Amino acid sequence: MTSAPLHDTGRRGFASDNYSGVHPEILQALAAANGGHQISYGEDDYTARLQEVVTGHFGTGAQAFPVFNGTGANVTALMSLLPRWGAVVCAATAHINVDENGAPERVGGIKLLAVPTGDGKLTPGLIDREAWGWGDEHRAQPLAVSITQSTELGTLYTVEEIRAIADHVHGRGMKLHMDGARLSNAAAALGVPLHAFTRDAGVDVVSLGGTKNGLMFGEAVVVFDPQTAESLKYLRKMNMQLASKMRFVSAQLVALYEGDLWLRSASHANAMASRLRAAVEDIDGVTLTQATESNAVFAALPPGCADRLRGKFRFYDWNAATGEVRWMCSFDTTEADVDAFAAAIREELAGGAR
Amino acid sequence: MTSAPLHDTGRRGFASDNYSGVHPEILQALAAANGGHQISYGEDDYTARLQEVVTGHFGTGAQAFPVFNGTGANVTALMSLLPRWGAVVCAATAHINVDENGAPERVGGIKLLAVPTGDGKLTPGLIDREAWGWGDEHRAQPLAVSITQSTELGTLYTVEEIRAIADHVHGRGMKLHMDGARLSNAAAALGVPLHAFTRDAGVDVVSLGGTKNGLMFGEAVVVFDPQTAESLKYLRKMNMQLASKMRFVSAQLVALYEGDLWLRSASHANAMASRLRAAVEDIDGVTLTQATESNAVFAALPPGCADRLRGKFRFYDWNAATGEVRWMCSFDTTEADVDAFAAAIREELAGGAR
Amino acid sequence: MTSAPLHDTGRRGFASDNYSGVHPEILQALAAANGGHQISYGEDDYTARLQEVVTGHFGTGAQAFPVFNGTGANVTALMSLLPRWGAVVCAATAHINVDENGAPERVGGIKLLAVPTGDGKLTPGLIDREAWGWGDEHRAQPLAVSITQSTELGTLYTVEEIRAIADHVHGRGMKLHMDGARLSNAAAALGVPLHAFTRDAGVDVVSLGGTKNGLMFGEAVVVFDPQTAESLKYLRKMNMQLASKMRFVSAQLVALYEGDLWLRSASHANAMASRLRAAVEDIDGVTLTQATESNAVFAALPPGCADRLRGKFRFYDWNAATGEVRWMCSFDTTEADVDAFAAAIREELAGGAR
Amino acid sequence: MTSAPLHDTGRRGFASDNYSGVHPEILQALAAANGGHQISYGEDDYTARLQEVVTGHFGTGAQAFPVFNGTGANVTALMSLLPRWGAVVCAATAHINVDENGAPERVGGIKLLAVPTGDGKLTPGLIDREAWGWGDEHRAQPLAVSITQSTELGTLYTVEEIRAIADHVHGRGMKLHMDGARLSNAAAALGVPLHAFTRDAGVDVVSLGGTKNGLMFGEAVVVFDPQTAESLKYLRKMNMQLASKMRFVSAQLVALYEGDLWLRSASHANAMASRLRAAVEDIDGVTLTQATESNAVFAALPPGCADRLRGKFRFYDWNAATGEVRWMCSFDTTEADVDAFAAAIREELAGGAR
Repeated sequence: MTSAPLHDTGRRGFASDNYSGVHPEILQALAAANGGHQISYGEDDYTARLQEVVTGHFGTGAQAFPVFNGTGANVTALMSLLPRWGAVVCAATAHINVDENGAPERVGGIKLLAVPTGDGKLTPGLIDREAWGWGDEHRAQPLAVSITQSTELGTLYTVEEIRAIADHVHGRGMKLHMDGARLSNAAAALGVPLHAFTRDAGVDVVSLGGTKNGLMFGEAVVVFDPQTAESLKYLRKMNMQLASKMRFVSAQLVALYEGDLWLRSASHANAMASRLRAAVEDIDGVTLTQATESNAVFAALPPGCADRLRGKFRFYDWNAATGEVRWMCSFDTTEADVDAFAAAIREELAGGAR
Repeated sequence: MTSAPLHDTGRRGFASDNYSGVHPEILQALAAANGGHQISYGEDDYTARLQEVVTGHFGTGAQAFPVFNGTGANVTALMSLLPRWGAVVCAATAHINVDENGAPERVGGIKLLAVPTGDGKLTPGLIDREAWGWGDEHRAQPLAVSITQSTELGTLYTVEEIRAIADHVHGRGMKLHMDGARLSNAAAALGVPLHAFTRDAGVDVVSLGGTKNGLMFGEAVVVFDPQTAESLKYLRKMNMQLASKMRFVSAQLVALYEGDLWLRSASHANAMASRLRAAVEDIDGVTLTQATESNAVFAALPPGCADRLRGKFRFYDWNAATGEVRWMCSFDTTEADVDAFAAAIREELAGGAR
Repeated sequence: MTSAPLHDTGRRGFASDNYSGVHPEILQALAAANGGHQISYGEDDYTARLQEVVTGHFGTGAQAFPVFNGTGANVTALMSLLPRWGAVVCAATAHINVDENGAPERVGGIKLLAVPTGDGKLTPGLIDREAWGWGDEHRAQPLAVSITQSTELGTLYTVEEIRAIADHVHGRGMKLHMDGARLSNAAAALGVPLHAFTRDAGVDVVSLGGTKNGLMFGEAVVVFDPQTAESLKYLRKMNMQLASKMRFVSAQLVALYEGDLWLRSASHANAMASRLRAAVEDIDGVTLTQATESNAVFAALPPGCADRLRGKFRFYDWNAATGEVRWMCSFDTTEADVDAFAAAIREELAGGAR
Repeated sequence: MTSAPLHDTGRRGFASDNYSGVHPEILQALAAANGGHQISYGEDDYTARLQEVVTGHFGTGAQAFPVFNGTGANVTALMSLLPRWGAVVCAATAHINVDENGAPERVGGIKLLAVPTGDGKLTPGLIDREAWGWGDEHRAQPLAVSITQSTELGTLYTVEEIRAIADHVHGRGMKLHMDGARLSNAAAALGVPLHAFTRDAGVDVVSLGGTKNGLMFGEAVVVFDPQTAESLKYLRKMNMQLASKMRFVSAQLVALYEGDLWLRSASHANAMASRLRAAVEDIDGVTLTQATESNAVFAALPPGCADRLRGKFRFYDWNAATGEVRWMCSFDTTEADVDAFAAAIREELAGGAR
């Protein structure tokens, strides 16, 4: 039994930030957390340290509930905000709406009230398209709003936009959840601390991302209200998101958020996306379809191009009908990766009448 | 930022096999699986290899669905066997009944029909106490039975007992699930291959344990029927048990089950439990309450003893009212650990009139 | 198209109080409520009157939420008392546990913690067998207790017994639900007003029966706490228990509870059960297995007897293995019915060596 | 205790067909079904007759499962068509999407994939906006389509349109559900038998309406496939939709559908809607916003008009922002009602500059 890799460790693409592996510092932290016995299910020293780290980022009273994955974080977070009859307003493109196989509905019993947007961002006006009907028992009660930061389309809410949404939402008696699978990318792009566009801006519960920024696995639900925290304790377990050897989730989150690894990695991924955009935006045939505000580039290509390019670099169609594709950068994307990919796109499109 | 341990890496106890950390060979496998990009959500090379490993253990057509934890494995496995109106007969002491905060009921919509047992083991006769009422829409339909191997009480089903249960269950149109969080311990104790007391004995779906036998995290639902496998694909995702960087779950399971690590580790843990039993069974005041057939020792102690012993060695009360305690051994329990613990027990009880 | 009966309107048995039809006064009330338009979903004049009637029985602040059936009442009532992680302690023989196809689990996400009893009645001691583990997220949290009055075994809690349970339950931070499908029979037997053994004794939510006491259909969840009432508004609708033409549910409940119809009918049913018991208790071969405290008689018969008797009078086996049967009396059971049935039993058992 | 009406039995409006009461022939049928004992939960003579009646309308093999209300019928019907991971494509205006407080999601665990339409009608093209992604476990699997006939907007699918949808849906491996709360109105408008636009056109499961066409309460799920029927048996009970005194649900459905009461009542309601439309369509200020194809008229009125009209005739806003209102006619709407209402509208709008 050897432990040789089964895969080509030199191959990278632009498919997703979860195609990448584990940041070396995270692997080291996992090794350091090993050995001896630690109380399971969260009463370990790493989870205790994580609470300090989270307090450092989000302020006194913030509590983190580590979970396994993003769907687990989102569904558990939303349930903590809602009675059984609650509904959640979200963008039609929200991960909770399109990529979680109905887990919010099936596990959470939550009706999603999805609103179409151009750029993946809600506004008070868009929210109001579905935020109505309180007191009418025939309507699933819109009691929370979920926004994604940075969005599934690579765009970004400004601090002011979030504050405006939070004020609006709270003014209507609703709560605000932020899906922060790429929260670090947002912070890096905004150039502000994590608390500035979450708790300080009025967000009630955050799904704090880990996996897409270099963890092996692990996210955390971060809350600021003690009563919500009490709910999360039970919801996490009944939602099958409570790790027995929790120290290994927490140790990763500590390693990511204790120093600046979260910011270094996210800034790098963002920079690689900007580099890619810059390298392709003047290519005839490439139409950039969204602002590049975090670590994703969205573009439309002529028919057939995407499939040919995928021979060398893996990436996803976003909308096969319109030729729109998504290129994601990660903590481990190199400048050389970007340059080679851009060159391949340029070469592909230079062909013209192909 | 250093990666120094936050905890005492030399301290071990007898509280649970999930207090232990990660086996060094597993850590190596995780490191080897790192680097480069791999398709997420299970289309990676490690998950492909895992299918071969699982086929090796369980025969052609067996399929493994890696999940995050044991509750996730059990609930997802049971749902794959049942229509929405199905109920599951289980021992009253089953993990699904007492340690999963109602996840089978809440997430799975499954009614559990729990039967009291003396030793954590069901029999055809015990099953029949709840296996009745088919066709009566007022009764949650008993369409599956779940047994735990080795049991939560450290006891073991023989191959023949499992086959008798499976025949009985199938004869009544039901399916058989095995919670195998400690499947390796059972195999080590029985001295037979994994398939001998699972698929060959008539088990329909297995929750294949990993975490308690030295993984960082990760279990797998193993099925033999293609239609059940198709269900599991969707159920795993909607149950929030689908890891994005799946390679790291699969790489661990491969490392555990490809060679003999699973067997070495489990045999060792079992041996340590036997050693502990042998060392304490003649001590006045120690009453062994269950057979020691895997890696757990159950004993009753005089009032106060357990609390005093816990000052040095952590372990759990099983039944505070009766003074019954549980001592678990793990892959990393050493002979010295056992001997020191047994000595402490002996010393504690020698005190007599304390 | 005629409206001639399709069934033998002169045939009655002892199978269940829901085999009987509608009390003539209820039919009249339904006819009187007909005609014209009334606001649907509960804003009608009959539902308004029902609130007054309910206040009269249960005191100021009591609110009634009419629903379709007993399962709907019980599940909706229990959900109103519990967070998503709540569990309910009940007798193993409780209707919610054995006759609702897991609706509490499936629709309510509620784990039932069922306790065996001899007579269908919980006690503080029996409750404590399952009422423990608060704060432990691995255990479904026991936050409510459900008792049935009169019980599924025809027995009765005294006012003092209920008060003792309520005090015990509240002392542990739990809530108390009463399944009152046969609440009127209990009141008739106890000789006290409805409030005396519900609200006054500490019950938090009542499933107020209707169908088994002569309604065509319809029960009500009765609550005393405004916050629980607010929950019920939404829970009733999402549980598919909100009637559009609500006036016809409420009109029946008004007709039943406004005057003394509830008491007359229940007293009669109870009297018929007593008459039946008295008529058979001296018959050799009839073993009465439960106290006859409401409208049910439980008895064990020699093998074969029950099936022969059922040729003329329909009734159910309670436990086929032990020969125990259940004989229910209803508002429309006549003295002649009872006497003829008792005679048939006597004749059957006179056969001796059959 | 008298049984005098509490309400004004001479007052009718245009708010909803569930504001009306019970058709006299239905009340007679209820009375005729009373008396004596009948087996509960559906083994009665009226439910047996209902099966014959339903077979008469829908052909051999059709089975009816009576339930309490429309939400119960829809959710139970959809669950019978779907595995746990199924999603349902529907119009955004579908009752299941907007008027059932998320019961499909909460009770059924069903994700609804809602498509905006102009007239409440789906088409193959509209269905395809959401009918994609089979085999992708991240997407709730679109395995059924639900259409409402006649629609919530008073419009009607032709037989050909339904057949085209059914063929399209089946061609993609999906099933077709029809919410037929107003199925009789559709049949009356189309001038064809019930089977012509349901089973014969390819519909798999029908929610057969009763309440809105003159029943006190009661709908039925009608299925044609024995396996789906087997599912419905259990689903109806676990969804709390199984009436104990079922004879009274079935007797109503028999009375409605055995002869031509269903058609007489629905034709009348439709005719009243046509009469209303004809009477108002030339009034300045009344803009008819939907085709009047069944028993509803949708119109937009100038600001303030609706509220003033409601002083005399109750009806609902459909879209307060645009001034759109809904006027429903019922089996008991009279020509005089319509004429008086039209006169009031004419008078109101004659005011001009009010």
